[in-house]
Amino acid sequence: MILPRVVVLASGSGTNLQALIDTLHGREVDIVGVGSDKPGCRALGRAEEARIATATFPIADYADRAARDAAMAAWAQEVGAQVVVLAGYMALLTPAFLDPFRERVVNVHPSLLPAFTGLHAIEQALAYGVKVFGVTVHLVDDGVDTGPVLLQGAIELPDATDPEEVHRAIQPIEHRLLPEAVRLLVAGGFEPDPENPRRMRRAVSSG
Amino acid sequence: MILPRVVVLASGSGTNLQALIDTLHGREVDIVGVGSDKPGCRALGRAEEARIATATFPIADYADRAARDAAMAAWAQEVGAQVVVLAGYMALLTPAFLDPFRERVVNVHPSLLPAFTGLHAIEQALAYGVKVFGVTVHLVDDGVDTGPVLLQGAIELPDATDPEEVHRAIQPIEHRLLPEAVRLLVAGGFEPDPENPRRMRRAVSSG
Repeated sequence: MILPRVVVLASGSGTNLQALIDTLHGREVDIVGVGSDKPGCRALGRAEEARIATATFPIADYADRAARDAAMAAWAQEVGAQVVVLAGYMALLTPAFLDPFRERVVNVHPSLLPAFTGLHAIEQALAYGVKVFGVTVHLVDDGVDTGPVLLQGAIELPDATDPEEVHRAIQPIEHRLLPEAVRLLVAGGFEPDPENPRRMRRAVSSG
Repeated sequence: MILPRVVVLASGSGTNLQALIDTLHGREVDIVGVGSDKPGCRALGRAEEARIATATFPIADYADRAARDAAMAAWAQEVGAQVVVLAGYMALLTPAFLDPFRERVVNVHPSLLPAFTGLHAIEQALAYGVKVFGVTVHLVDDGVDTGPVLLQGAIELPDATDPEEVHRAIQPIEHRLLPEAVRLLVAGGFEPDPENPRRMRRAVSSG
């Protein structure tokens, strides 16, 4: 059985990578590589434990971000990636990476977009004083967390004040929604609404 | 038993007013008046059916919005309002109304603020392509839907495309959260977090 080939990019602890490994890898997708801008990050260790190839692209090794992203895109193409998943990848991707993978790069963001884009989304939400927190899985475009939404999940935390507490509460939603979105995406399960191409809907052909 | 006195402002069908009448009026609060900028709106009819005094303040009767709002504030003070609830009141309130009622004006908005402020919030959310919709009850300040959040509730509607369908789905949340917020507010049930005064938390003294 030939599985859809997925590359994961990560910068940190890799819990979303682990969720993808545990739920999809070897069954519904083949994670053919894990790339990182942070040599030594825990995500790379998780990949090695799962016998997945790794590659590192620290910015210090390149002339600029575009050069780094071009090298990372070349690697992702070499290993045959059809879909790229950002699982806690903290650097902004330039067109040098995105252009070969348009509409096939997925990100998970710890807020209900369009609220609280960019870094420290949970801290931003707490500063605003929201009572509902959440997670967005979306396609990546050239903006910061502006691409079409694939899946969202919410949780009411009316008394939350601690970012770590919110993080712990929404992490299970991330670990559920990101694999679900990847599973649907590789199966052609999303299509743009003809009436509004940035609104993604479930494709009729898929479950 | 002396109940806290509440004035409700409305412009439309008045379903949120009805929820307040059905759950709180005569039990936990006394709705002493319903004001409107729209003579003949259904909300005024609902007030009359519940034998609540009504007053209308159409903008055409005044020199400008400040004059209208000053008249409306004078009326609300005359009837003894301690808290003012905007229940589908569609005009922006000026300081002429807000100043006498600072921190005591509550609004219900059909989105998870800070996303989708202002008019047509549901249409804005559908245009963005969100999968989670919701309701925010907040204190009114001088901005458009920018005041401190009191309560929020969310609902996942991943396949929604029709504003009317979303409206029907979130209306029960409005009808639950608005009376709950008013009940807590008149009982002193909210207090600003000392670490961040725009984050409202449940007061320790209240249930």
